[in-house]
This record gives sequence, structure tokens and C-alpha cells, in this order.
Amino acid sequence: MINKGNGTIIFENPAEILSYASAVGPKENDGPLKGKFDFAAEDSTLGQDSWEKAESLLQKNALRIALQKGGVSESDIAVIFAGDLLNQCTGSSYSIRDTEIPFAGMYGACSTMAESLIMASIFSHSSHSPGNSHNTIAAALTSSHFCSAERQFRTPLDYGGQRTPTAQWTATAAGCVIVKNADSEYSKSSESSESNGNFRVKINSATIGRIIDKGIRDANNMGAAMAGAAYQTISSHLFATGTRAGDYDMIVTGDLGAVGSGILYDLFQKDGITLKSNHTDCGMILFDLEKQEVNAGASGCGCSASVMCAEILPRITSGELRNVLFTATGALMSPTMVQQGESIPGIAHALQLSAD
Amino acid sequence: MINKGNGTIIFENPAEILSYASAVGPKENDGPLKGKFDFAAEDSTLGQDSWEKAESLLQKNALRIALQKGGVSESDIAVIFAGDLLNQCTGSSYSIRDTEIPFAGMYGACSTMAESLIMASIFSHSSHSPGNSHNTIAAALTSSHFCSAERQFRTPLDYGGQRTPTAQWTATAAGCVIVKNADSEYSKSSESSESNGNFRVKINSATIGRIIDKGIRDANNMGAAMAGAAYQTISSHLFATGTRAGDYDMIVTGDLGAVGSGILYDLFQKDGITLKSNHTDCGMILFDLEKQEVNAGASGCGCSASVMCAEILPRITSGELRNVLFTATGALMSPTMVQQGESIPGIAHALQLSAD
Repeated sequence: MINKGNGTIIFENPAEILSYASAVGPKENDGPLKGKFDFAAEDSTLGQDSWEKAESLLQKNALRIALQKGGVSESDIAVIFAGDLLNQCTGSSYSIRDTEIPFAGMYGACSTMAESLIMASIFSHSSHSPGNSHNTIAAALTSSHFCSAERQFRTPLDYGGQRTPTAQWTATAAGCVIVKNADSEYSKSSESSESNGNFRVKINSATIGRIIDKGIRDANNMGAAMAGAAYQTISSHLFATGTRAGDYDMIVTGDLGAVGSGILYDLFQKDGITLKSNHTDCGMILFDLEKQEVNAGASGCGCSASVMCAEILPRITSGELRNVLFTATGALMSPTMVQQGESIPGIAHALQLSAD
Repeated sequence: MINKGNGTIIFENPAEILSYASAVGPKENDGPLKGKFDFAAEDSTLGQDSWEKAESLLQKNALRIALQKGGVSESDIAVIFAGDLLNQCTGSSYSIRDTEIPFAGMYGACSTMAESLIMASIFSHSSHSPGNSHNTIAAALTSSHFCSAERQFRTPLDYGGQRTPTAQWTATAAGCVIVKNADSEYSKSSESSESNGNFRVKINSATIGRIIDKGIRDANNMGAAMAGAAYQTISSHLFATGTRAGDYDMIVTGDLGAVGSGILYDLFQKDGITLKSNHTDCGMILFDLEKQEVNAGASGCGCSASVMCAEILPRITSGELRNVLFTATGALMSPTMVQQGESIPGIAHALQLSAD
């Protein structure tokens, strides 16, 4: 892979997406993307006795279905890159504990799907094993749960705190994407895979973001904390790859919501770029903001992960979208640091997805 | 790189360690490795008004000194892979926030130095940039702090809880390792680098571990929670690389301590392997267990990171050790999950370091 500097890499032999799956809670399956998810729980406990265990079970479902759709088994996965919002990333460790897949834990807050998928792409792209096609396959997995996140980051659910207009609703959702080296012999068998439409999805380039902190101290305004990082990462990616915003059919951000998306437009407008025309924010399309009363939109690692798997990737495999810049955004927010008067660092990681 | 399956990879063109640095607190610099650290704080607050900020400052010192010793600047680092024990990995995000280095957040508990260094090695090994030698450099960084960890994972410091015999003392320490592609033009300039002795250190192979959970539910017995993972990862690495334990001058584990090391010996003994003869545990040599009253030994991400940088790598660069298997171990322990009656998953990642 070619390192273009400032976090941008270009894959000469791009990793290809073998399969993907989403798993969500009932509220998520009652919004604009209803019926597009691979798994939708009837209630957000998933029959578990804690929210944390329910979140792990969402992940397990996403992983299980992605494996099924890709026609591969756990033992075919060389490494799984995964993380989530819970302290010590327990959503991931307790779901992956029940597998035998080598596990690299990630922490990128809501940017985790992009971060994990970049790592999986680098791993698949870079590794080869003559005579054995199985082990160039890697997976990216993440999740969030409204109930486990709210009580950890903000207030106990029973407290019934009033939500501010800038607040976002943490998605109860998980997503799993499995990638393989494009040279892998799996290319042949995967053509018949259920998850592949007319087009294959390749990951041509990526940008690992740097931390941008705009001084936001409000734990109920994640969009503002992340917008600067989204601007930085998208700008860096465009510059390093010599592309313009208009070259993409869609520029996707993770969960900026209404507040963060507005700030992002303002930042690009200063550069003379009108981003709004081809921009979509996962946090703006997972829920109906007014009807579902989610204030500024959706958030959480599972937001961009599930929207990617239920909406973005299917539109690329169908050929409707040919060239997409997927930028998941994360607010590295710690209640401890906010209580100490610190501001909230933001980060964003981007992947270029193309129909092939 | 060649994927051997079960998490093991072999680098055809191994990444090389450009420089490394350790930063510790006063208790750590009062033990058997006294005077070997690059930076030792006079008191564990480092002049900060919170333990979390003190931990970030330890990281900053390790990074700053590693950059100095390697003769490189922040802008030369393509990506930094970092994580720590604090919720949301704030030790890392708040230290890296003040740089412009692209950042990939990791969570591997006390295995973080090995996990991050594997990622940095994969990145350096796999990326090239014709005509520009700078951007094949990547860094791995981690830390822990006794005071920030104890209150987060166990009890408030002021509570003065009695420590059990199996308890380990979280190291107040940070470590940073900078790697480069062995083909990089930096090879020439680095020969004069302070941190390089007679020998260069290459990372020839690595094993990304899988989660092993032996059912331990005691938050004061991390060694037992990690020993099974260490056994699994070391065994996998030996099998995949066709090597025997006796082929290594030293097999290093991260922070199994007295209890975990004993369990590891028993597990290998069942395979007819006497590991004790060439095994060293960082958690057993950072402190004088009796004099410094640390019960079963040291632990924390900073334990294996600082011992690696202060003791293991210098002995490889001097040529005293020629072939080392460095296996950092992590207990993915969550107070929330332990309170819910769950057991503690363990993980271990390994790197083969050789003098060249």
C-alpha cells in the first residue's frame, strides 16, 4: 500500500468486501430504514438480564449473519478488529470470547467501524498465504446500545433526565463487515454469495484521522465535538488523493446529526465547497428525527455501522452508488475528563468504497 | 507478510525498531530497574491536578523522548497506535490530542504494547512511498497509572482497602516504540541514533491472540485471568513458526506476576515443556515484590511497555539477547461485568524480536 502522508493510504490491490450484516433494536427498525436490517430484535433486552449482555448479543448476531452471507466460518477469519463504546470494550470482548477468532481490540468511540475496517483492509491487503485462500479474510465489528451507553456516559436511565435539543440518541445497533484480499480464491465462490449484488465493493483508499478538539465541554453535544474532526479527515483525504468532494456520489459521515452536519457544511463553505449536495449523515437517516423524538439525530458506534450495512453498501453493490467516501466520526468523550473540566476530543476515519 | 493462520503472521521484510523510550513514576524507579528508564517522575502527580492528566503526561514524555532518540519529528510518524487502561483510553487520546499524528486507538488492556506494536509493524512493513522515506514510520504507545487504575477498577484510593496476596500493583509507567520499514532510508541515519547499540532489533513475526476465559471472577487475581491466554498465544506462535520454547533466548510475558507465572509453568509442563528456564515476566522484575510490598507483582499496560523499553530492548541491541518472544498479556476486566457475575476474559499478543 502507498502511504500518502497525513494518515492517507492507497491500496494497490484493494481489499474487497465479502459480506456484511446489521443487527438492530426495535426503535431502529421502526424508522426510515425499516426492514433493511438483517436482524431486528423485538425488544431491546434481547432476552438478556443486562443491557451490556444485550449489546454483546447484538454483535454476535451481526457476526453470525455476516459469516453466513459470506459463506465462511469463524475459522476462515484471520483476525477480527472490534470495539465499542462500553468501558473496556466489553460489548466486543464478551461477544468474541465465544469464538476462536484472533481479536485485536479497537477504541475509536463512534468512529470504530471505519477504524476497524481500515485495519481489516490493511491486514487483508498485506497478507498472503500461497496455497491457502482462507486466511486473507478479516472482519470488522462494532456495536452500541442506548441503554448501556446512556447510563455509562450521562445519567441513569431511571433518572429520566430531560434531553437537550443538541443531544443525540445512541443507536441500539451492531454491524459486521468481512473483507478479503481481492486476489483471494474466495473471489470465485463469493460471486454466488447472497450479500453480493451486481457489483463488488472495493476499499481503494483510507485516511486514519488525527484528533481535533474544538473545546466542546457539553456531553450532550457530540455533533459539535466531532464536526471539526470530520472536516479535517475529509479534507485530508481529498487533498492526498487529488480528488474533489464532487467526485464522490456520496460523502457519508457517521453520526454528526443535525448540529454537527450544519457545522461541517459551514467549515467546507469557507473553502468554497458546498458539501450538502452529496452528503449523507448516518445519524440523520437512521431515525425520523421528529416523529421518533431523537432530537439532533442518532449516534453510537452502531449507528454508522448498521446504516453502512443496511443502506450504503447495498446501494453500492446494486451499482446505484459507484464511489463513496465513508467517514465515521467519534467523540472520545470521557465522563471523568469532562467532570475534570476537560473538553472532548473528536476523531474521524475515512474509507473510499467503490463499485467494481 | 505471510499469514500462517490462528493469528500468526511472518514478515518477509521485517519492520525494524528505530527507537524506544520509557517514562515511570518514583516507585518504579526505586526497584530493580532503577536508573534504566529514560524519564522518572519525582512524584506520581507529575505536577498535574488529576491522576488521569498525570498519566497522559507520562505518555507525552515517552513519546517525546522516543522521537528525540530516533532523530525524527512528529510529522515523520505516519500513524500512532495507542491505548491504555482508562475508560475511553483517555490516557492516550489526551496525550496524542496535542500532536498532529494520525491516531488509531487500541484496547487490549495490559496487552496493549504488543497489540499496538504488531499494528505498527504491519503498517510499516506494508506501506511504501517511493521517493519519500519519512512515511513508513509508525509508533506504538501505552501507559498505566496506579492511582487512576485502582480507583477505576477496584476501590477509591482513600478507602485504603487491604490488598489480597494475589493482587498486583498497577505500574505508573509509559512506553513508546517507534518502528520503520527496514527498507526505509532511515536505516542509514539511524545507525548513529543514541538508542541503537551494536545490533538492530527486527520484528520477524507476531501472533494476534484470541480470548481465553478460564472463569476467574476475582478482580484481584489478574494473573490467573491472563495465564491461559499467555499459554494459548505462546503455544500458537511456537506451532505456527515451527519453533520450540528453547529456541528463544528469552520468552517474556507482560504481567502475569507470581500467580500467573506459576499457572503458565504448570500449563506448559503438561506439554512436557519446562518454561521456567528461559522465561521472564515483566510483572516480576519491575518491582522487588517483597521489599516494595506489591504482593504478586506489577501489572498495567505500562508494566510490559516500560520493562520492554528499559530492560528487554537494550539487552537485544547490545547483542546479549538475540531472539526474544515478547508476549504482553491483558485481562479484559470490566467492573460492570464482574458486578454482573461475569468472569474475566484474558488475551495475549506476541512479537518475535531479534538482533540483526
